[in-house]
Formats: sequence, structure tokens, C-alpha cells
Amino acid sequence: MKIQPDRLLADIEALAAIGDTGDGGNCRLALTDEDAGGRELVVGWMRALGLDVRVDRIGNVVATRAGMGGDGAHAGDGAAVMTGSHIDTVGTGGRYDGTLGVLAGLEVVRALDDAGVRTRRPVAVAFFTDEEGSRFPPDMLGSLVYAGGMPLEDALGVVAIDGAVLGDELERIGWAGDAAVPGPAPHAYVELHIEQGPVLEEAGVTIGAVTSVQGISWQELTLTGQSNHAGTTPMRLRRDPTYVAAETIAFVRRLATELGGHQVGTVGRIDLHPNLVNVVPARATLTVDLRNTEETMLAHAERRLREHVAALASAEGCEVASRRLARFEPVAFDPAVIDMVESTAERLGHSVMRLPSGAGHDAQMLARVCPTGMVFVPSRGGVSHNPAEFTEPEHLAAGAQVLAEVIAELAGVAE
Amino acid sequence: MKIQPDRLLADIEALAAIGDTGDGGNCRLALTDEDAGGRELVVGWMRALGLDVRVDRIGNVVATRAGMGGDGAHAGDGAAVMTGSHIDTVGTGGRYDGTLGVLAGLEVVRALDDAGVRTRRPVAVAFFTDEEGSRFPPDMLGSLVYAGGMPLEDALGVVAIDGAVLGDELERIGWAGDAAVPGPAPHAYVELHIEQGPVLEEAGVTIGAVTSVQGISWQELTLTGQSNHAGTTPMRLRRDPTYVAAETIAFVRRLATELGGHQVGTVGRIDLHPNLVNVVPARATLTVDLRNTEETMLAHAERRLREHVAALASAEGCEVASRRLARFEPVAFDPAVIDMVESTAERLGHSVMRLPSGAGHDAQMLARVCPTGMVFVPSRGGVSHNPAEFTEPEHLAAGAQVLAEVIAELAGVAE
Repeated sequence: MKIQPDRLLADIEALAAIGDTGDGGNCRLALTDEDAGGRELVVGWMRALGLDVRVDRIGNVVATRAGMGGDGAHAGDGAAVMTGSHIDTVGTGGRYDGTLGVLAGLEVVRALDDAGVRTRRPVAVAFFTDEEGSRFPPDMLGSLVYAGGMPLEDALGVVAIDGAVLGDELERIGWAGDAAVPGPAPHAYVELHIEQGPVLEEAGVTIGAVTSVQGISWQELTLTGQSNHAGTTPMRLRRDPTYVAAETIAFVRRLATELGGHQVGTVGRIDLHPNLVNVVPARATLTVDLRNTEETMLAHAERRLREHVAALASAEGCEVASRRLARFEPVAFDPAVIDMVESTAERLGHSVMRLPSGAGHDAQMLARVCPTGMVFVPSRGGVSHNPAEFTEPEHLAAGAQVLAEVIAELAGVAE
Repeated sequence: MKIQPDRLLADIEALAAIGDTGDGGNCRLALTDEDAGGRELVVGWMRALGLDVRVDRIGNVVATRAGMGGDGAHAGDGAAVMTGSHIDTVGTGGRYDGTLGVLAGLEVVRALDDAGVRTRRPVAVAFFTDEEGSRFPPDMLGSLVYAGGMPLEDALGVVAIDGAVLGDELERIGWAGDAAVPGPAPHAYVELHIEQGPVLEEAGVTIGAVTSVQGISWQELTLTGQSNHAGTTPMRLRRDPTYVAAETIAFVRRLATELGGHQVGTVGRIDLHPNLVNVVPARATLTVDLRNTEETMLAHAERRLREHVAALASAEGCEVASRRLARFEPVAFDPAVIDMVESTAERLGHSVMRLPSGAGHDAQMLARVCPTGMVFVPSRGGVSHNPAEFTEPEHLAAGAQVLAEVIAELAGVAE
């Protein structure tokens, strides 16, 4: 059973033509006309493959290839081995993020068909609504609803950054289906995705066996001091929130480096008020993004940060207010699925390494209801969410072949 | 000879009614209708005092009380002892910045008249156009032109932040006079002003004998690194301009503290790009404001900063570009005038201290052409350029009396 890279590449190219931004990038924000165009195209391919296509009430699409059944059961009985991802993009997205997992899933079905392979369990290829969350927060909304983590009514009521209501937009583009949510728990879920980071490329490794998704802690810190004239205020009389912000940024770097492992820490946003060259600011607002694969380490990092900022602010005579913007615990993938991804890659002669995912994926929602794993392929320069997003064709093909063999093994090839 | 505080306070209140912002503050941006209203009021008072009022080609107003002449010269002969300041304000100004110096000058004239004192030299009260520079940059424009530091044609051609041309606005409001610029060099210039900083209040001192105006160095630093995903990029692979900016801010604090004396350093503005919680920024732009009373120390601070930022950026793999936004050398006031302010305050029983000015003033332009000094009175909380700007009435009176006696001494009381 061999996947055919040319078919996969052609599908990626065809889908990238919808919402083409002219610079190599794609814009198919969730539930826009471009998203609908992408859905039409992909579902057309699903139907052409003879799959049983079902659309659920939040617009997730699951296309199933019937199984032979085991132990005398009927064809199609039993929980499916599912693969998939998403076809929506961020505003300035690339052509691989999400689409690779969905289109590689279809190529797996074609490869099974070409080889005349029947599996005991059904094989399903899914794409989930609004994975990016760029238009309708939060991200991974469709898979969250599928896995029972958010009530349908809440999801349909989400208001977009452009003011649109999710349920209205879903109706408008004609993709509010009638399959129930939460959806049926798969037997297992495996997702192929580009890494969106530099680790595989830097290590010169083709396949990543993803062990987990990092837990995320986002905080907004507002530091309030005393606005003063930059010329007339002696240093010893200053209460400068910018200084506290600066020492906080330096501490985040030291903390992440000291904790090591998979701890990362980022200050990506700062806003000073009034933000003028000759005024000591009254207020500095900054965000701190902390991530770790271990919940205890993440909580430790949060505590260390909180204590350090409190001490810095107190020494400077500033006030601190903190607001939690997001908090997700780490998600560990299934050890057996991780082993299977790793051993399959080795058997196929690919270099492979275990690594956590720093970004969120639909797989972390499916991990709530079934054994789950992911396959990563390298991102050139670690670049994603950018028109320059790129993965070598040979890496795309290697990832799809690993996916195909893992799916076949999980689904059980009928004798 | 005694100034009468009630008259001074009444004048301050009357002028503050023009461009009243309703919150205790004033908005009389240079060459607006409000500025014209203020000019009418003050010049009316000048004429009522029998002063010889002249308006020059950049709109500076000089009102002169004739002298007796020395050594048998005619009344009015010889260079005047000048005092004054400005009546324009920033957009959210207070009621004391500038106006105190002009209205106290008029009160000095009244006190001389009340006491029947004739001075050998003329006494002149001036207000200069566009000291704040908030509408028409640079600041201190009128006194700069008066002192010969900027050609009239250049000044008339300055374009406001609202698009207006200075010369057109000066004509429109009817304050383009015919007195020549540069203006005649005074015999001496002494300006009373609120401190606009916290030093006098903190020391519990009523009168400041201003020794100098700090030199100013404004730089904009643009740090360029590599934008990356906050979750997927390991710490060791980051080239984060925000980290370099943070260490730069911390260094500015350490440098100013280490150099001591009158060195101050401020980072008042930071802009990150793209400024998102989950993206390592591609670029950080920040400003550094360095000031010192000693040119050699200021140049030393600039060099230390440049070297440190270069090393930080290099270690992080970031590029640095720097742009000079402003650079003025320190201005030292005349030792004899400083001594006279100090000894006069002591004789009148006021606490007094020497201090430099951290803000710019018209006096620093006049210092180019004659012996110059300044008298400071405390600003509550060090607050200025703010509707909450406030100086105790007794401090206003003390400053005006010191000014009166210094003016009389410099002008020479006729026997």
C-alpha cells in the first residue's frame, strides 16, 4: 500500500486556489465564503471516493470508509479509526497548516483502495470547524464541541471579531448539518500536521512522533506607577512601570532557560501609556505566554513569575494587576500510538524523533475521548501562519505514508 | 517695594479663563484663537501700566518700562533688564507653566510703580511665541528666533501638526508685528517659572536658584530579530528583539543611577511588531531620553549605551538601527545671576537651593545673548503639563518677590 505524492500535492494546490492571497498564502477564515468553497471542493473529493459523508450540527465533516467488521460484525460496524484536521486558515495563512492532515487522510483512503485493502474497522477522514479561532474564538472550537467539551448552544452563539454570530454564518453558508454532537468516539485518532516550529528541521529529522501538546498559560500584567517628566524627575523619585516590565521580560527569559526541558516563555505584547519619548509612563501592560508539557512545571513557572513581579513592583512603588487570558493543561498522547508512529517511521527508513507540540491541534480535543497521536513533518525555517509556510514535498510524502501505515495497523487489515 | 500676591493671583485666574478646559486646565496652543485671546488680555494689562509694547515679526511681545538712564543718559536708554516667559500651553496644560513668569513680571512693574521706584536701566516684560512647540515644533521657537538661533523665514515656514503654516496663522490672528528679529540683547534676563518637577517639594524648599538647563539626547532604537511562534520555538533558537529592548531599559536605569549627579535616563515609548500575545516579535522600537547638566557626562552616557546595546543585540542575533531625534548641549546660567537669586532668597528669609532645570525654557535661548538666570518655585507632586498642575499661593508670592528684588538690583535703583 503506497500513497502517491503527486495526487496529494495536486490536492493541496487545488485547495490553495480557494482564498489564494496572491503571495503564496491562503485566507479561508472559518465560515466565510472561502471556507464554504474549500468545503465544497473537499467534500466533492470525499464523495467521489465513495465515502459516507456526514455533517454535524457545528459543521464538522466526517467521511467514513466502511470496515469489514471483526468477529462476524456487519461492514461499517464499530468505532472508526479517524484521521483529519481542518481546512480553515488564519488571515495570513499558508497552504499546509491543517489542509495537509485532511488531504493526506483522503490520500490514505485512495492508497487503501488502490491496494484493495479492506480494514476491519471503518476509517474516517474528518475536518473540524474553526480550528484557528481567528474569526470565532476560541480555537479548536469544532473539535471541542465534537469531543463534548463545549455545549452546542454556546458554540452557535459565539460572536466573531467582525460581529457575525457563528450559528448564523453556519446557516448562511449552508454547512449546518444534522449529525449529533458530541460525535461518536473514534477507536483511535491520528493527525498528520506540519510542525510549525524549527525543531525537526534543525535536527535534520523527517518525522516527529508527537508526545503531547504543551499546556498554555496566558496572562496580562498591568503595572501602574507614576507618570512624570523625563527631565525633571530624579531617578530616585521614579515609580516607573516600564522598568518593572523590562525586568519582568528579562526574568521570563531566565526562568524558561533555568527550568529547561520544554518550558518556553514569551512576552509578545507591550503597551505603554502615554507612550511618549519624554514622559515616564504611568502604565505598562504586557502579556506573558508560558508553556510546558508538564502541568506541575507550568504551575511552578506561573508561581515563580507571580512572586518575582510582585517583588519587582513593590521595590519600584508600582501596583500590579494580572488577568488570565487563557489556561490549558498539557495533553499527553497515547503511549501505544506514539510508539506506533515512531516504529512505523523507523521501519520505513525515516529519521524520527519524539517531541511535544507547542501549538494547539484538533488532536488534543479528540484525546479526551480516544487514544490519540500525531505525526509531524518539518516546517522550513519553523515558519507558519505566514504565506512563506513551506514543507518539502518529500517530507509531505513521508508523513502521509507513515500516516497510512499507522491507520491501517490501527484499523486492522482484514485477511 | 512689595509685590501684592492678590493681584498676581487674580491675573493668573483671569488668564486661565481663556482656553479653560473645565477641569482646572488650560488649552492655548500657539497661534490659535485662544492664544490670541490670551495675548489681547495680557497686552491690555501692559498698556494699562503705561508700558511701551512692541511686537516683533515672529509675534514675541516685549513691554518696556523706561529707565532713568545712568551717567546722564536719557530715560529709556540702554539695554533693558528683561523678565518674562510664555502664555501658550500644551494641549492639556495647567495654569502656571509660563504664565507665572509673564504675570509676575507685570506684578514687578506694579510694585516698582507703587513704591515710586525708578531704575537706571529699562525693565522689560516679554512673552515669547510658541514656547511649548506642541503645535509648531520645535519648542522655544519664539525665543530661539529672538536670540538669533533660527532665521525668521525658517520659523514662519514651520508646519503645524494640524497642517497650518506658522506665518499664516500669525497673520490670521493679527500678531505678526514689525519689530525686527533677532531682537536687541537685554542687559540681563531672569525668568520665574514653576519647577515642573518634585525636587523642591521633596526638599521642603521654597526657592530654586537654577544653575543650568540639562542637555538632552533623544534616540530611537529599532531592534530587529526573528518573528516566531511562541509555542513551537525553543528558547535557544530565539532572536527576540523584545528581550534586547528589556535589557536596554534595565541598562538605562543602571547607567543613570551609576553616573549619579544630574544624569537621568528614560524609556518612555516602546512599539512591538506585531505585538501579539503568542508571537515572538520581529521588531521592537524604543526611545531613550538621556539628560545631564554636563556635556562630557552626557556624551559618555550616550557612548556607554551605544556599546551596551550593540553587545546585547549581537548576543541575541538581532540588528540595531539608531536614529537621533534630538540633541541639545547643556546651558549654564550666569554665576553672578545665580548668586543674586540665591542671596536674595536668603535675605528675604526663604529656604533656597541650587538645582538644574530638567525641562527647556525660553531662558536657555536668552542665555545665548546676555547674562541669564531663573527662579523656580515648587510644583505640587512634581506635576506639570496636566490640569492638576499646582503651586501654593505663598510660593507664587515668594517667587515673585525674589524676582522683583533681583530685577531691581540688576536694573539699578536710581537714587
